[in-house]
Amino acid sequence: MNAQEQLHQWHELAQQLRVDSIRATTVAGSGHPTSSMSPADLMAVLLSKYLRYDFDNLHNPNNDRFILSKGHAAPLLYAMYKAAGVISDEDLLSLRKLGSRLEGHPTPVIPWVDVATGSLGQGLPIAVGIALAGKYLDQLPYHVWTLLGDSETSEGSIWEAFDRASHYTLDNLIAIIDVNRLGQRGQTELGWNTQAYATRARAFGWQAIEIDGHNLTEIEQAFSVALTINDRPTVIIARTKKGKGVAALEDLGGWHGKALKAEQEKQAIAELGGERHIKIQVNKPEEQSQPVSLGKAQPLQLPAYDKGAKVATRRAYGDALLALGAAQPDVVVLDAEVSNSTYAEDFAEAYPERYFEMYIAEQQMVAAAVGLQVRKYKPFASTFAAFLTRAYDFIRMAAVSRANIKLVGSHAGVSIGQDGPSQMGLEDLAAFRAVCNSTVLYPSDANQTAKIVAQMSDRPGVVYLRTTRESTPVIYSSDEKFPIGGSKVVQSSDRDQATVIGAGITLHEALKAYDRLKNEGIIIRVIDVYSVKPIDVQTLHQAARDTKGNLIVVEDHWLEGGLGAAVLDAFAGTSNTPIYDGLQLRLIKLAVSDMPSSGTPEELLHAAKIDADAIVEAVKSQVKQLVGASG
Amino acid sequence: MNAQEQLHQWHELAQQLRVDSIRATTVAGSGHPTSSMSPADLMAVLLSKYLRYDFDNLHNPNNDRFILSKGHAAPLLYAMYKAAGVISDEDLLSLRKLGSRLEGHPTPVIPWVDVATGSLGQGLPIAVGIALAGKYLDQLPYHVWTLLGDSETSEGSIWEAFDRASHYTLDNLIAIIDVNRLGQRGQTELGWNTQAYATRARAFGWQAIEIDGHNLTEIEQAFSVALTINDRPTVIIARTKKGKGVAALEDLGGWHGKALKAEQEKQAIAELGGERHIKIQVNKPEEQSQPVSLGKAQPLQLPAYDKGAKVATRRAYGDALLALGAAQPDVVVLDAEVSNSTYAEDFAEAYPERYFEMYIAEQQMVAAAVGLQVRKYKPFASTFAAFLTRAYDFIRMAAVSRANIKLVGSHAGVSIGQDGPSQMGLEDLAAFRAVCNSTVLYPSDANQTAKIVAQMSDRPGVVYLRTTRESTPVIYSSDEKFPIGGSKVVQSSDRDQATVIGAGITLHEALKAYDRLKNEGIIIRVIDVYSVKPIDVQTLHQAARDTKGNLIVVEDHWLEGGLGAAVLDAFAGTSNTPIYDGLQLRLIKLAVSDMPSSGTPEELLHAAKIDADAIVEAVKSQVKQLVGASG
Repeated sequence: MNAQEQLHQWHELAQQLRVDSIRATTVAGSGHPTSSMSPADLMAVLLSKYLRYDFDNLHNPNNDRFILSKGHAAPLLYAMYKAAGVISDEDLLSLRKLGSRLEGHPTPVIPWVDVATGSLGQGLPIAVGIALAGKYLDQLPYHVWTLLGDSETSEGSIWEAFDRASHYTLDNLIAIIDVNRLGQRGQTELGWNTQAYATRARAFGWQAIEIDGHNLTEIEQAFSVALTINDRPTVIIARTKKGKGVAALEDLGGWHGKALKAEQEKQAIAELGGERHIKIQVNKPEEQSQPVSLGKAQPLQLPAYDKGAKVATRRAYGDALLALGAAQPDVVVLDAEVSNSTYAEDFAEAYPERYFEMYIAEQQMVAAAVGLQVRKYKPFASTFAAFLTRAYDFIRMAAVSRANIKLVGSHAGVSIGQDGPSQMGLEDLAAFRAVCNSTVLYPSDANQTAKIVAQMSDRPGVVYLRTTRESTPVIYSSDEKFPIGGSKVVQSSDRDQATVIGAGITLHEALKAYDRLKNEGIIIRVIDVYSVKPIDVQTLHQAARDTKGNLIVVEDHWLEGGLGAAVLDAFAGTSNTPIYDGLQLRLIKLAVSDMPSSGTPEELLHAAKIDADAIVEAVKSQVKQLVGASG
Repeated sequence: MNAQEQLHQWHELAQQLRVDSIRATTVAGSGHPTSSMSPADLMAVLLSKYLRYDFDNLHNPNNDRFILSKGHAAPLLYAMYKAAGVISDEDLLSLRKLGSRLEGHPTPVIPWVDVATGSLGQGLPIAVGIALAGKYLDQLPYHVWTLLGDSETSEGSIWEAFDRASHYTLDNLIAIIDVNRLGQRGQTELGWNTQAYATRARAFGWQAIEIDGHNLTEIEQAFSVALTINDRPTVIIARTKKGKGVAALEDLGGWHGKALKAEQEKQAIAELGGERHIKIQVNKPEEQSQPVSLGKAQPLQLPAYDKGAKVATRRAYGDALLALGAAQPDVVVLDAEVSNSTYAEDFAEAYPERYFEMYIAEQQMVAAAVGLQVRKYKPFASTFAAFLTRAYDFIRMAAVSRANIKLVGSHAGVSIGQDGPSQMGLEDLAAFRAVCNSTVLYPSDANQTAKIVAQMSDRPGVVYLRTTRESTPVIYSSDEKFPIGGSKVVQSSDRDQATVIGAGITLHEALKAYDRLKNEGIIIRVIDVYSVKPIDVQTLHQAARDTKGNLIVVEDHWLEGGLGAAVLDAFAGTSNTPIYDGLQLRLIKLAVSDMPSSGTPEELLHAAKIDADAIVEAVKSQVKQLVGASG
């Protein structure tokens, strides 16, 4: 095939991608045809010549990766799959229908989709994570390609990605920006000023290539050059027209996210030269290598702490992570420039080849974790619990991506003391509980922390560990077990008048309250709910029955959505679980409700009414009420 | 005073700021002296000559604003206040103590602090908001100064701010980056490469000036030049040394966030020339103008909708916002490039001078809202509910700032249909409930929405409104009232066997279920909990008493932390509120628990088991259980 024939073939494929994007969205009655049409030429060339992907073996480690950062161009992606022969035309036309894998925005329900996109500004940061895996862990020559919209470069997360990608010299990363000039509601900020994009990209250390995104020769040249760059990532800034190829759509406003009606569709398809059913053979990777070995797994030797010693659970996290590093060579660690506070630094020192410093960029940190798990590594990413809120959209989307990531938030609650409210994680339990299929863990002691960390690495989904800044007494022996979904009844008798439920720092306040109340003749049960989600429903139900419904939940967290909410939920029915059928629940929530200030940890626990004093008072009020009620 | 004398005076003041930063942190036993020492020369010159601030009248609209983006340098800020004569030395030494206004990171508990900082990367985006107010609303010549750390430029939000500031030609904005080379745990990514910072800033459209941050002459020149730039914002990139002036600290690692011990303090102070107690008179603004008028308030004429019409609550939001715009000239609106979906576009068209397009940058949008309310405007900021998660750290910090902002999230829940889970707001109620002193509103009908929007503008704190994509029937007449904290009992009788509690889209499912159950002889109460926080506790208690504890909460939200949790909380006690003393609660939560896909709204409500079918089934199971229990 000569050059002219090849250009013609690419053009035909591009037109097919456009036609199919229109056909699918018109049948669906919604979707983004025009956003799919602008980058069709780029994708036609990528798919025909440059992408190396073995559709017969999606687990081939040498496969290139392609991330559709502009997830709303899903019809284009699906049209590419059809062209590659892996979905049928019938599949294509199931777009956006219940039961179809072809959702409105791509998700990993489709086997060749690594991660969900659709929240803009996330694809590139995730691609950075995969490229880190390729260059530093797998050490395989595959490339990571990602197609961005121009509008999404407004998101700061894109610039976190630009920065970290050049910092880590990710020459295996190739980004393509589809500069079609039109956002959802009008012109983008930079319009067709591709030079502005290029200047910014270069300032952030990238190779930038400006092209006409509808000129197939320029596209081919840009891809060829990008593959030869070996000292930095490359961005191809492609000037395109939204709705390219159809006069009624091309470069016109008012067409974002709108499907064509039947008559419009007919005319558009005619203008594009009609339907085609070209199938192309996507090139398979030539490389036949396996990822390099990251060391031999040693038997797991978790740290053990003596009862009574004072050890912060964040310290135990660092120790356990170090141990896990020896036992599991696929564990990798990221931190956002606070590894000496989260104690990820010990792992960083022992296994620098598996540690990625993300600097102060929590969004990029979580995105990189999502990218690393695409290549089956087990990422643990840590920062202050308060600062994980910065990445909440990425965490939400990680769940849509069905990603397996472990996030660790230190410095939870008012008990951090003097630094003040900006540094206190007080909404993390609420935020992480409200993530689909998440696990939320909150240990109170160092031995417990170690056992829990060991279980995290193979736990699927978004797994969150909350750690405490302050040193707290070791109360469990190192041979106890702490299964996820369980709890520990720390104090109990057959005379318990109330149950106090705590976790983390408040468990220790509950134990102080236990001693004081016992001296006054009031016996309470104390339960350590280290597994906040899933929670140990049975033990809570038993306690409610045994202590006349008198439950007190005490937590270093806002009143809403945290431990107290988790306990209440254990007594509600759902469409899958029955209602608690015991007696009336008399539950008191002790939690932070006013904005904290600076102070010592003790002062702040007291001011927030979540210390032993507050627990003693709450128990007495319950027991007194009960006496009053029965007397 | 000649130039030499002035330089000497500035040097003396800078040394005092250093000494006082050390003294305060040593007494406190914690804090960030070295981070306070690097920018001391910059701040000495700013305070002595360039800042225009009337400490006697902090409400003077012509005052410059100073935002300490690197909030951990709080001791430096407090030392500046001491030098300005507005706090005493005794105050200074109360740093980080319970009851002191001088918290570990600055908060507006201090009258001259406009916003809280301490979560890095937020000060500059907020400064953009204030500068927008200054240039476009107040139209006064004050300047907004902000001091950044170098580490925080890793946050993408900084680049959102750089971009939007130049887009809006904020020549009244002057940023200073304290490039002290050392982050919390070692060298920053760019070290002392001030040229890299300058290149990036210029690529984003700023004037960039590189200086030696310890050279008082260079500092003075840079500030002077910055004040003359009138076509773009200016950033001064100052190369400094962390811990400057004390050999044991200067440019050394391992000193981040560490107070000096008494002996170290003594030597450091000696090295800095001893304690000083210089007081300076900060220049007051020369300008005596008032902010320009943004129009005359018209009587509020809210939209009214006919009962039975089908209107989306997002549509009603847009209509009500437009009405509010006429009635309240201090209402301003922001959106993140989806104003044609949130319907903020109508306000934008009517009042372009009070509308700020933030493009796709939710962090910058929320930060700008916080900045605008510093100048007493009433910002409404909207995007898809799902994408407000992107700004969760900014929302959390807005509460620490005691900011009054209104946030509006559209496209809530699975009922958006075909676009799929990436676009569905399913964690917003949980996230916003867990914000200190927040208000969470979720109307079900257009007339209700209008009444609620009208109440939002004067409601203090973070106020969140959740709107629905789909059109739903108008069920309330336009003269009904919907006070925040209230609810509507939509169906009730003295024969109610169960209570179904919904809001937004699910209220309409509850009403369908009501009709179907009635046909089968089962009468239910239906409550519209449009005010999720605060919630109408009394009405819920009454319903529980009237319907034998049979409550069913149905919500288009994850199972955790949303409406169901809010209802459960109404039955729990806290340290301030007593336990519900009625009978046993038999509560069923119907909510989304599995990852949704694409589909029609009806299909997805059904698949999630939150439609009328699911409600009917749940009611029957409760009523049947009750029959079983009593029989």
